Amino acid sequence: MRPIIPDYLAEVLGQVEPDASGKPAADNPQLAAADPERLGAAFATVDGQLHGAGDIDVPFTIQSISKPFAYALALADRGFGPVLAKVGVEPSGEAFNEISLEDGTGRPLNPMINAGAITVHSLVAEAGSGPAERVRRVLDGLSAFAGRQLDMDEKVCASEMEHAHRNLAIGHMLRSHDILTEDVGAVVDGYTRQCSVLVTTRDLAMMAATLANRGVNPLSGEQVVPEGVVRQVLSVMFSCGMYDAAGDWTTQVGIPAKSGVAGGLIGALPGRIGIATFSPRLDGHGNSVRGVSLFERFSSDMGLHVMDVPSAGRAVVRSNHVLGSGPDALRVLELQGGIGFAGAERVVREVLETDPQESRTAIDLTRVHAIDDVARRMVLEIARRLTLDGHEVYLVDPETVIPDPEPGDGGRVTVIHEVRQAVLPSA
Amino acid sequence: MRPIIPDYLAEVLGQVEPDASGKPAADNPQLAAADPERLGAAFATVDGQLHGAGDIDVPFTIQSISKPFAYALALADRGFGPVLAKVGVEPSGEAFNEISLEDGTGRPLNPMINAGAITVHSLVAEAGSGPAERVRRVLDGLSAFAGRQLDMDEKVCASEMEHAHRNLAIGHMLRSHDILTEDVGAVVDGYTRQCSVLVTTRDLAMMAATLANRGVNPLSGEQVVPEGVVRQVLSVMFSCGMYDAAGDWTTQVGIPAKSGVAGGLIGALPGRIGIATFSPRLDGHGNSVRGVSLFERFSSDMGLHVMDVPSAGRAVVRSNHVLGSGPDALRVLELQGGIGFAGAERVVREVLETDPQESRTAIDLTRVHAIDDVARRMVLEIARRLTLDGHEVYLVDPETVIPDPEPGDGGRVTVIHEVRQAVLPSA
Amino acid sequence: MRPIIPDYLAEVLGQVEPDASGKPAADNPQLAAADPERLGAAFATVDGQLHGAGDIDVPFTIQSISKPFAYALALADRGFGPVLAKVGVEPSGEAFNEISLEDGTGRPLNPMINAGAITVHSLVAEAGSGPAERVRRVLDGLSAFAGRQLDMDEKVCASEMEHAHRNLAIGHMLRSHDILTEDVGAVVDGYTRQCSVLVTTRDLAMMAATLANRGVNPLSGEQVVPEGVVRQVLSVMFSCGMYDAAGDWTTQVGIPAKSGVAGGLIGALPGRIGIATFSPRLDGHGNSVRGVSLFERFSSDMGLHVMDVPSAGRAVVRSNHVLGSGPDALRVLELQGGIGFAGAERVVREVLETDPQESRTAIDLTRVHAIDDVARRMVLEIARRLTLDGHEVYLVDPETVIPDPEPGDGGRVTVIHEVRQAVLPSA
Amino acid sequence: MRPIIPDYLAEVLGQVEPDASGKPAADNPQLAAADPERLGAAFATVDGQLHGAGDIDVPFTIQSISKPFAYALALADRGFGPVLAKVGVEPSGEAFNEISLEDGTGRPLNPMINAGAITVHSLVAEAGSGPAERVRRVLDGLSAFAGRQLDMDEKVCASEMEHAHRNLAIGHMLRSHDILTEDVGAVVDGYTRQCSVLVTTRDLAMMAATLANRGVNPLSGEQVVPEGVVRQVLSVMFSCGMYDAAGDWTTQVGIPAKSGVAGGLIGALPGRIGIATFSPRLDGHGNSVRGVSLFERFSSDMGLHVMDVPSAGRAVVRSNHVLGSGPDALRVLELQGGIGFAGAERVVREVLETDPQESRTAIDLTRVHAIDDVARRMVLEIARRLTLDGHEVYLVDPETVIPDPEPGDGGRVTVIHEVRQAVLPSA
Repeated sequence: MRPIIPDYLAEVLGQVEPDASGKPAADNPQLAAADPERLGAAFATVDGQLHGAGDIDVPFTIQSISKPFAYALALADRGFGPVLAKVGVEPSGEAFNEISLEDGTGRPLNPMINAGAITVHSLVAEAGSGPAERVRRVLDGLSAFAGRQLDMDEKVCASEMEHAHRNLAIGHMLRSHDILTEDVGAVVDGYTRQCSVLVTTRDLAMMAATLANRGVNPLSGEQVVPEGVVRQVLSVMFSCGMYDAAGDWTTQVGIPAKSGVAGGLIGALPGRIGIATFSPRLDGHGNSVRGVSLFERFSSDMGLHVMDVPSAGRAVVRSNHVLGSGPDALRVLELQGGIGFAGAERVVREVLETDPQESRTAIDLTRVHAIDDVARRMVLEIARRLTLDGHEVYLVDPETVIPDPEPGDGGRVTVIHEVRQAVLPSA
Repeated sequence: MRPIIPDYLAEVLGQVEPDASGKPAADNPQLAAADPERLGAAFATVDGQLHGAGDIDVPFTIQSISKPFAYALALADRGFGPVLAKVGVEPSGEAFNEISLEDGTGRPLNPMINAGAITVHSLVAEAGSGPAERVRRVLDGLSAFAGRQLDMDEKVCASEMEHAHRNLAIGHMLRSHDILTEDVGAVVDGYTRQCSVLVTTRDLAMMAATLANRGVNPLSGEQVVPEGVVRQVLSVMFSCGMYDAAGDWTTQVGIPAKSGVAGGLIGALPGRIGIATFSPRLDGHGNSVRGVSLFERFSSDMGLHVMDVPSAGRAVVRSNHVLGSGPDALRVLELQGGIGFAGAERVVREVLETDPQESRTAIDLTRVHAIDDVARRMVLEIARRLTLDGHEVYLVDPETVIPDPEPGDGGRVTVIHEVRQAVLPSA
Repeated sequence: MRPIIPDYLAEVLGQVEPDASGKPAADNPQLAAADPERLGAAFATVDGQLHGAGDIDVPFTIQSISKPFAYALALADRGFGPVLAKVGVEPSGEAFNEISLEDGTGRPLNPMINAGAITVHSLVAEAGSGPAERVRRVLDGLSAFAGRQLDMDEKVCASEMEHAHRNLAIGHMLRSHDILTEDVGAVVDGYTRQCSVLVTTRDLAMMAATLANRGVNPLSGEQVVPEGVVRQVLSVMFSCGMYDAAGDWTTQVGIPAKSGVAGGLIGALPGRIGIATFSPRLDGHGNSVRGVSLFERFSSDMGLHVMDVPSAGRAVVRSNHVLGSGPDALRVLELQGGIGFAGAERVVREVLETDPQESRTAIDLTRVHAIDDVARRMVLEIARRLTLDGHEVYLVDPETVIPDPEPGDGGRVTVIHEVRQAVLPSA
Repeated sequence: MRPIIPDYLAEVLGQVEPDASGKPAADNPQLAAADPERLGAAFATVDGQLHGAGDIDVPFTIQSISKPFAYALALADRGFGPVLAKVGVEPSGEAFNEISLEDGTGRPLNPMINAGAITVHSLVAEAGSGPAERVRRVLDGLSAFAGRQLDMDEKVCASEMEHAHRNLAIGHMLRSHDILTEDVGAVVDGYTRQCSVLVTTRDLAMMAATLANRGVNPLSGEQVVPEGVVRQVLSVMFSCGMYDAAGDWTTQVGIPAKSGVAGGLIGALPGRIGIATFSPRLDGHGNSVRGVSLFERFSSDMGLHVMDVPSAGRAVVRSNHVLGSGPDALRVLELQGGIGFAGAERVVREVLETDPQESRTAIDLTRVHAIDDVARRMVLEIARRLTLDGHEVYLVDPETVIPDPEPGDGGRVTVIHEVRQAVLPSA
């Protein structure tokens, strides 16, 4: 069988290819010299599978796409408090070359604008680290996200430093507000190096997949940053990631994303997929023209918008019946599918409405495919309350979807592998 | 058994109750006179179950919480084009009493600020409708979201109109840019009536649940607005719903939400739940102090943040085995759980890696709990490609998770209810 | 002899006439229909002489040129305190259609922008006056500035009111900040009437001359507003009068000025002259294209820039000599020219340096052409101190440039008409 | 006789001394360590006389008061075009630490804010000069304004450079817009040196007097910058000189002025006087508290507001009579006082109204104290037109107020010293 997804990707690339609008970033001669016709797209699944089409192995500089990853590293290295004290999480509603500092404090509005990203760069690695350590930490951290050792493009970096006046201006402004406390030149130099890390579309897809996979690189299995950090990063990417067009992107594409002026664009769907595209032609907002088109297609073709309601599944309560009769009768609640808060609520309700008179109850999880923390706690609370009401409670859990069940104060459950283990011979 | 969720809600209400900071909205005497100690919270599930605690049946005016619903009605009544032409979707990053019109065009930045909401009010009901028709449409529409007939608070409305100078200012400014084309006084009057609709916390939870339920009221079953409209509304609520604190809310709470100055606050989790709280004490941003605390608790206690990665389920391919042998051998791919794009991708990969040599293949959906559109299309594409490769393909689908399967050009499937129906006697 | 100034004006008009750039105000159909080729200019001296060339008797609406005059009336009617409490005096640096309210207070930045002018209109006539009284006060006040009874153009006024949305927006915004306390519609209507007063270039020149003449209409002799009010009005005209181009105007032309969208433009040089021009073609700032050119010519041709240093006059001390000898000798200080602070300082110095040993001193003012308050006080202080030092002091003042001289505590002077009256026969 | 002005200054200093509000600039430790009670005031006349009271010989750093002088030097060195192309003349209406660059171009709004002053520093000395030459030019130029060789305070300078982050930020921002084309660090260092020039209140008064005296230092007689430059500088000081309070200052004080954070404050009245005060206690705008109070007193006590109408002098036409009779009769127009445009206009009018039938006319300038360029041209034009009408024209000008009179095309005048020289014996 021919692979389906590469076929799809190749088809979609073919559709956006004729659009020759936009052009490579003009500010930096190295970027301006990029081949404008390069085009690639890749999907990386949360279990590490990569599907790609086009120029997915051409290296280019990561540029602003480094921002969410460096932000993740800073949050992991310093904790939320110190980072949030210096960089906000408000959308700026302004073009990517605005300074956007908070009145009074001088705190950059968010980590996706340059002022925020420069500050974030100063916050990677442990407190007290020097410029070289920060750069090493960023390079190692981005490499961990990508699952392979990355390098920097020294030429682009040197070229950027020659034109770094705006970033130096931002750096000194931050320094004047004591948001930056390090040497301004060294931080801007480090940030420029961060932006000059060379990646391929393949790398970016894997980096995005690491975000989508709770911070665990799907290939290496390394927990690059904690899960809570990932949630923060994805939230900020969603509301602030796409310069000056955040609103349109949020409503039309609905994928947490980040673009870079070298033509890269990533998106990360929590729990689902990492996406990357590459095309150096930029629109007026500094976003890749074809990249934006590709993401619009991906979002609508595959229902990837975060506000898309997932397909309603079957009822979580597959059956509610009694086995046997008399004092040994067993009330069986057979559950199925993925259970989150809403599903657990339905189970609670089923128990309340049934008001089981049988003294023995089995909650059958055999067909439960996934269960959230909150749902797990709620199922155990049901068990506890039933125990308190005088029930003997069985958890039928052959595949251990609830490991080490502890119903808490006064509750008690017996774990079995099959319902019939709870059926008394007399029944 | 005692009900679990109301117990939980009562406990959380008890925890926020001691916080007596903030005070009712001062601008309107009717609102200022509200009992500041009122406190209630309710959850409404997408199948219409309501759990509440506290003052969930006390009526109050809906105020700005009407904005997302009126936006939904306008999108439904006029279509996306005419509405987006007049109201943007950019976060404003400004306080709730800023005008925030786009430079040049005068287009309000988004429908959650007053300028946007006033414009939206002028766009409900079909083009050419008069003031009374617009008000009726809003009242009927909000009622359909709530699932019961709502009324207006004439006193609050009259009191608001006496102090409506800011809204009149906004209205005339919009009129001067030809964003409003109707009589300014009539539109502002209608918008004020819209804000004066009386709701209870119970109503608001149900209205939020209608958004969470793809636009279908869980009780009445009415499709109040189309699904695409809901996605747009939730996206805008997520990025622009909480005045002047959108960033903190987006990262910390992560629930599409909207607050009103009478003390109401709603949140809608797509596919999961509608939430509402009520407490008239407001913070400096005009948001309910206790309401915000409650949502913070709900989000962290129940994993309701939209960027939370749902619990990883079991592998979507439950088994991959062969029944029988020889030319009649049957390759069986047993799937399970909920299947979206990522799951379908995994199935594709399983088929590619297996490269089945058997001429007959069964895809067993018996344990599949839910399947998305894109996953459905991909499974059928697998079937089509296997047919083209010379396979005879069976779909084991006892509960019809794929109704009327059409694999398309050159593909063919036989639907059966049990795997053994495909096992040839000879095997 | 042919008159010089009209010849000059006609020559300059001829030079700007070929410039057909710009066009009449488009917002109001009545203004848009103006003959774009109308062109006139007039000078009015502070003693009431008018020189003009071109269309100086064509009536047009005063528009924003009414602003400084209404501001003068409000200051005169209500006093500085109440007016400054509601309208600031800061340049706005913004285009003429910006709202420009002070953060927090909602106070318009200055009376030359619409928000300020609308507020000012609400402050004319005594407190408690109704809309009709305010309009009457403005019409009467503008008429007093012009020296003849003016009327309104009802057509332009009605046409303006149809398009008054921006002003109504401003009015309601001001009302919401309690800057306006009157009925918004009535104030905006009144302000629109104020702008619709019909004037000719001749009238405007006379109105400007009234400002240049300390508030006294040169023809009627009426003190229209107090002198302190005029100083305030001229200061505000200088820094805020020319929309969006205040800086260029201030440096290049240097004349307190105000333009109107009907094509009028006035300038007032304190103590010297009132100027008016008329040409309906407007530039992008809403200023008359040819009017601006004319003022640039006037300023450079005639040295009218307020920062121009007036020609240095002859030494204020014309001679310092002694008449007679012995005990009856008379020290004579002969002054000349106009004496202000700097001149008086020179006289003080002359006395100190001379350290006159004669017991009798005459200060001869015969050739003094003008003397300021401060200089008058200083001359009398010299007299007082000389008296205290034992001198007998004579003031030779045949034309009474210092009426009723009172040297104050311990001083004494004898006023005489000729120096020789102080020469003792014995000398 | 006791000197009057020092008595006045001492009295006014005594009145403001009790005001101990405000405190020395906190940003720079050297400035923060200033003795807050230092207090001085000085007047310098345009003929070089200095009157002072209090600490007028205490040196302190010039800080922002260097801005108008450096602006004058840049205009003199490079011409208006190159300087205006890089620095605007619009009031910024913002606090002194705002950047205030023009949208799009990045041009600083005016030379009185730091962005403008840093740019101006890069424009002193001839094009192509290096950092040391620019610093030398500024030091020499400021010294020329002061009339003595000034030095820099190396300690304050070094201390400033340690905290120069905001200025470096501004410098790099300007560099990124190509407004600055020099090395940013060198320009900011040079600008910091400029601000560290040590002056006394006496020096500042003399520097202001040089501005008041058309750019000629009253002591040295050196033309430091051309007269046109001074007009530009005074205009910009008037509208942009006093940070964040420009409007109040313009209306209430009405003197072109500039303050520095070390506590200095200067004012320059064109043609009249230079004023300086010194008191390190600053208000929230960064202006000296007592300095502002002193200027308010000076302005109102001495009528120094630029919009004050100078005292009306006597009629410019002292007499209009005929000497002799018959064909030799002589028409005599006796003029007096200072004659500007308005006065000359009156003379023109007198001639027109008289319509002299005598064939011989004498214009008697004996009592004319001062005459402007335009008035001089107008008097000669009268002479020319009278000649053309057949008159023989005499100019009675014993003190040569009109040197080398040239009435132009067809005109002719005879200069005499006494009227009687024109009286024919026969008359």
